[in-house]
Amino acid sequence: MIRSLTGRFVSRSALATLVVAASVLASRCPAVADEGMWLFNDLPRKELQTRHGFTPTDAWADHLRLASVRFNSGGSASFVSRDGLVLTNHHVGVDTIAKLSTADRDLLADGFLAERPEDELKAPDLELNQLIGIRDVTAEVKAAVTDALGPDEAVAARRARIAEIESREQKASGLRSDVITLYGGNVYHLYQFRRYTDVRLVWAPERAIAFFGGDADNFEFPRYDLDACLFRVWEEGRPAGIEHHLEWATEGVAEGDLVFVAGNPGRTQRLLTVDSLKEARDHQLPFEMDAIRRQEILLQQFSLAGSEAARRARDRLFGVQNGRKARGGALEGLLAPGLLERKVIEESGLKAAVGADAALRPLLAAWDAAAATARARTGLLGRGMPSGSRLLRIAITIVQLVEEDEKPSGERLPEYADAGRESLLLSLFSPAPLYDDLETTVLADALAELLERRGADDPLCTRILAGLAARDRAAVAVSESGLTDVAERRRLVGGGRAAVAASPDPLIRIARLVDPEVRRHRTLVDELVEEDRQAYDRIAKARFAIRGTTDYPDATFSLRLAFGTVQGYRERGRDVPAWTTIKGAFDHAAARAGQADFELPASWLAKRSVLDADMPLNFVCTADIIGGNSGSPVVDRAGRIVGLVFDGNIQSLSNGFVYSDEQSRAVAVDARAILHTLEVVYGAKRLVAEIRGRR
Amino acid sequence: MIRSLTGRFVSRSALATLVVAASVLASRCPAVADEGMWLFNDLPRKELQTRHGFTPTDAWADHLRLASVRFNSGGSASFVSRDGLVLTNHHVGVDTIAKLSTADRDLLADGFLAERPEDELKAPDLELNQLIGIRDVTAEVKAAVTDALGPDEAVAARRARIAEIESREQKASGLRSDVITLYGGNVYHLYQFRRYTDVRLVWAPERAIAFFGGDADNFEFPRYDLDACLFRVWEEGRPAGIEHHLEWATEGVAEGDLVFVAGNPGRTQRLLTVDSLKEARDHQLPFEMDAIRRQEILLQQFSLAGSEAARRARDRLFGVQNGRKARGGALEGLLAPGLLERKVIEESGLKAAVGADAALRPLLAAWDAAAATARARTGLLGRGMPSGSRLLRIAITIVQLVEEDEKPSGERLPEYADAGRESLLLSLFSPAPLYDDLETTVLADALAELLERRGADDPLCTRILAGLAARDRAAVAVSESGLTDVAERRRLVGGGRAAVAASPDPLIRIARLVDPEVRRHRTLVDELVEEDRQAYDRIAKARFAIRGTTDYPDATFSLRLAFGTVQGYRERGRDVPAWTTIKGAFDHAAARAGQADFELPASWLAKRSVLDADMPLNFVCTADIIGGNSGSPVVDRAGRIVGLVFDGNIQSLSNGFVYSDEQSRAVAVDARAILHTLEVVYGAKRLVAEIRGRR
Repeated sequence: MIRSLTGRFVSRSALATLVVAASVLASRCPAVADEGMWLFNDLPRKELQTRHGFTPTDAWADHLRLASVRFNSGGSASFVSRDGLVLTNHHVGVDTIAKLSTADRDLLADGFLAERPEDELKAPDLELNQLIGIRDVTAEVKAAVTDALGPDEAVAARRARIAEIESREQKASGLRSDVITLYGGNVYHLYQFRRYTDVRLVWAPERAIAFFGGDADNFEFPRYDLDACLFRVWEEGRPAGIEHHLEWATEGVAEGDLVFVAGNPGRTQRLLTVDSLKEARDHQLPFEMDAIRRQEILLQQFSLAGSEAARRARDRLFGVQNGRKARGGALEGLLAPGLLERKVIEESGLKAAVGADAALRPLLAAWDAAAATARARTGLLGRGMPSGSRLLRIAITIVQLVEEDEKPSGERLPEYADAGRESLLLSLFSPAPLYDDLETTVLADALAELLERRGADDPLCTRILAGLAARDRAAVAVSESGLTDVAERRRLVGGGRAAVAASPDPLIRIARLVDPEVRRHRTLVDELVEEDRQAYDRIAKARFAIRGTTDYPDATFSLRLAFGTVQGYRERGRDVPAWTTIKGAFDHAAARAGQADFELPASWLAKRSVLDADMPLNFVCTADIIGGNSGSPVVDRAGRIVGLVFDGNIQSLSNGFVYSDEQSRAVAVDARAILHTLEVVYGAKRLVAEIRGRR
Repeated sequence: MIRSLTGRFVSRSALATLVVAASVLASRCPAVADEGMWLFNDLPRKELQTRHGFTPTDAWADHLRLASVRFNSGGSASFVSRDGLVLTNHHVGVDTIAKLSTADRDLLADGFLAERPEDELKAPDLELNQLIGIRDVTAEVKAAVTDALGPDEAVAARRARIAEIESREQKASGLRSDVITLYGGNVYHLYQFRRYTDVRLVWAPERAIAFFGGDADNFEFPRYDLDACLFRVWEEGRPAGIEHHLEWATEGVAEGDLVFVAGNPGRTQRLLTVDSLKEARDHQLPFEMDAIRRQEILLQQFSLAGSEAARRARDRLFGVQNGRKARGGALEGLLAPGLLERKVIEESGLKAAVGADAALRPLLAAWDAAAATARARTGLLGRGMPSGSRLLRIAITIVQLVEEDEKPSGERLPEYADAGRESLLLSLFSPAPLYDDLETTVLADALAELLERRGADDPLCTRILAGLAARDRAAVAVSESGLTDVAERRRLVGGGRAAVAASPDPLIRIARLVDPEVRRHRTLVDELVEEDRQAYDRIAKARFAIRGTTDYPDATFSLRLAFGTVQGYRERGRDVPAWTTIKGAFDHAAARAGQADFELPASWLAKRSVLDADMPLNFVCTADIIGGNSGSPVVDRAGRIVGLVFDGNIQSLSNGFVYSDEQSRAVAVDARAILHTLEVVYGAKRLVAEIRGRR
């Protein structure tokens, strides 16, 4: 599942190492493949014309952009009706579906269908974004930073300027206004979003078919998943009217067809130097894998306590397993011969050319500088604050928020600046359930991990534990904390620093203990990011001088357009066809009889006779995607929906470092299967009519 | 499950760090608890008389020793009939039960009962040991090492002397003759064993009841497991006649009763210095946990391929999960307040007294020396050769064996010396099945781990991979290797170095590549062990000078006697009774309905009406046990069997570092439940009669 790795599912310990590497201006090499995650205001029109005989018009691009939806929680989606229907993956919606579930109403297991609009279930903390406009603000941002500034001053000055632009533009437009960093800091664009925060669940199939094959089939192909669900955005108490929504291509798509994917790829690092890639391969990714496996075993153990425990942990466990598989695949890609070899050849060619030019030669030192920051980043591994505990994150957010609020927006940590404030509060004041038993387990482990990392004699550790074992400290802190109550969170935020300082809440006290350390670590990371920025800026200059053109920027969880063709591939001497069918799902279930993750839901078994066995279920295409693209619409030349991206095959997992269309494929649910099963299995005639525009 | 951690289930990477810390002459403090794993030739007669009014006679002790059985694969057992019936835990026999299973005959799932002796199933590679005699050889061993020798020379000289004694005694007696290191090298005893290698499976219950509650209930109490099975030793084609076998105490045991446990505890480290314990807590155990979680996820992923894959991996997965839980508990014990505090108080008291005595004062440096070796050991973490691959272990054994064979026994690595040769060959030439798919998976991961640890650019790594990805290299090596065929292993060993050097077998070639590195690492470890030995020798001198007496030695997987009383405990304000009953098992299953690990087997469900609901099933006692004690008989004052040790509760998991009888308990199957279910559920009347001595 190519849910964004920047989503909330990844433990902070792992994330700490992700918030790092830079990426920069690249050479636009002759297009030999369907590569690229393109900016909507800089589409590869020439490549598209040359390779596919297609030139997108501005109207085509604007419509697709405006019909595209970003799940702020980490994922992509699209509007599919004039009444605000939003199509995304089940695994993008799963966080909300889990939050809407209780011990008595397990929507993950049983699925959900709102018979009428008034039956739709309001998500507790979901924010969807529609990208209204893009503007280049590079000059304004860069003017804030002069050569005289040191790394920490440069970070502060740039941060202040960005916050200033965001505040100003938000006030002027009323829109969420984010300055997006592109090309590793060489370009800054202002993205303005309409925010939708009244988002309601309309339909979700059972997890058994949405995630058919479970962890075993995740990132594999052939695949047989109905990984889809529908939400609706509401405004002022009624379904929002949406002008730009995608039509459904009822005739579907055929092998070789040109398709487009509009979505928010989370992060690529295609321009890392070889030395930086080796640091990732030999240190950073192995470290993250250890942290993820630790989380996975922990959540598995928690789930053993019974079916209700398993239900409570399922959503997190899925996220952890997904992250483990994604990172494991990326690591395997870096370890295998070929990928790094290509990088070495490309980089040494570039460096040789730079070295041969006396004027450029001083730029060679930039590669050493990048290697030094990569090593320094490795040195920071495990120095951050581990926390899978949502309650502790809430506590830390409150402690930081009341402190940051006393500063001007531009001097705050960026996540506390005015631009993102509403989104931050939506999340902080979410009424989504928090389970004491699960929170205790993950907090106890976070504390134990902190002890292991810092050594149990560390003064911070002994202050946090206050003479108790980690497990007991966590149990006391969670049971005595008032933070499960949203009103108490509001009270603390409203009361500001004084209220927080006076609070006897044990989690607030732990958060206050760790906050200086969290900030200290953050500063170290920020400095490395800045040093990287400067090193990669010089590498980009060298690259531009030798190669002469520009390319798409690395992914940053902002809207991009990818393109490719529907196309099978060869693997271990066998042809893998581009499609699977509904019949294939039944066959696959039969072949894996007795395995829980391969049991089709009762609804499918009951309707087998009326299901169209030959109906395409999933297909693959060569579009260049990565985590965060989950839920992206796949559209045809006419901009009509033909599929719904939900996965990449195992060969695509090194896409973060290098794209190849030899075997790497995006995996999508065929749009026809969604409509067919909505009608035949789920009896959702009203929805089908709405999607078909016949309501 | 308190199977020995020195057993084969732990990956070598983890083991590498276990083959380490020393333990030494201790003070015999006033007996305040039922502490101790006592040598059969140095029983705590005074303590037993003082605390329990019981003095074992020599005849009592000799009979119990001779009726005790060591599973060479890691576990304990006892003779329970004159015709060679051996009682142990199902989880001690599980390795053999798995090896005797096939895709069509899953003895783990279905259980097994031999109707007649000729139906008993011969284990492919099981060796049982009966301890015939013990003799002190300390003076002879120590005479080989003079002060003039450096650490490496001391290791070599001692090794040579031990091999010499073992060879001589083996030739003279025909018995397996092992020199056992006690008190961390202050004392050496010659243990002489009768070996039984024709061992046959007689009865095993279904895994569903043998391991009822699965990983969730492992190391928990209350517990409801029939973790028992029966083997029989044969000699010359018929059941062996066994003079010393244990009688069954038909009336059972009552609360407060004095009981004894005879078995082979694997390893304790009760005399480690505080600094060494902190190294274990902050570095060694966390490292091992990472390695274990990696194995666990790997085997889980492998098992997802289907039920046959799951069957193939089950035995290993169990071992890994068991090791994870045991080590996790030990780490939690070290991290919790209390344990280390006690150690600090005790150690600082001792050091203060040593410091106050001018003659002893120089010995204080020994604590620093021990701390230095502990830190050095931490520095070696991850420098060994990871290998969960049995095939690669076979290959390395062959490569080393043919090289070591060219040296005199005393100069070889100890495992290749004459004394253990027959046991080594039994294992090396085992016809137990090896599965290509499983071997490929674990070898691929071992290679990937090696790449991660050494950095993928390491020359050894590139030579091993030969241009392939780890996964492909492993697939080629396993599929092209002849080592699954025992005849090929024999051919290579028979052909000696020349045959091995000429072999094109890819696994042999990999083994030859890594062997120098394995040996280099081994030497580093050996030197640390020797330095530890010398440091702890001086600490022991100081301890003896201040405290004046001696105590039991740390556990070394040699036969010991523990004692205690049957006794419940208090936990989180609740009383935990000493017993569970058969009814409790049914109640527990009902409470956990829907969870696979809590489904009682069909045989129990069918016989529910005739099962005695109030029959005691499991009980706890205060005897001092640890991993390796699994399968130990629990006997009463009359030396009759009342139970079968199979587990410790969660509180016992820090027993490796310190014993406490406040909550820590050994968990046993009640002997009455074994006979009752043998008769009522399994219809094994013949066996029951044999055990009762009525045949």
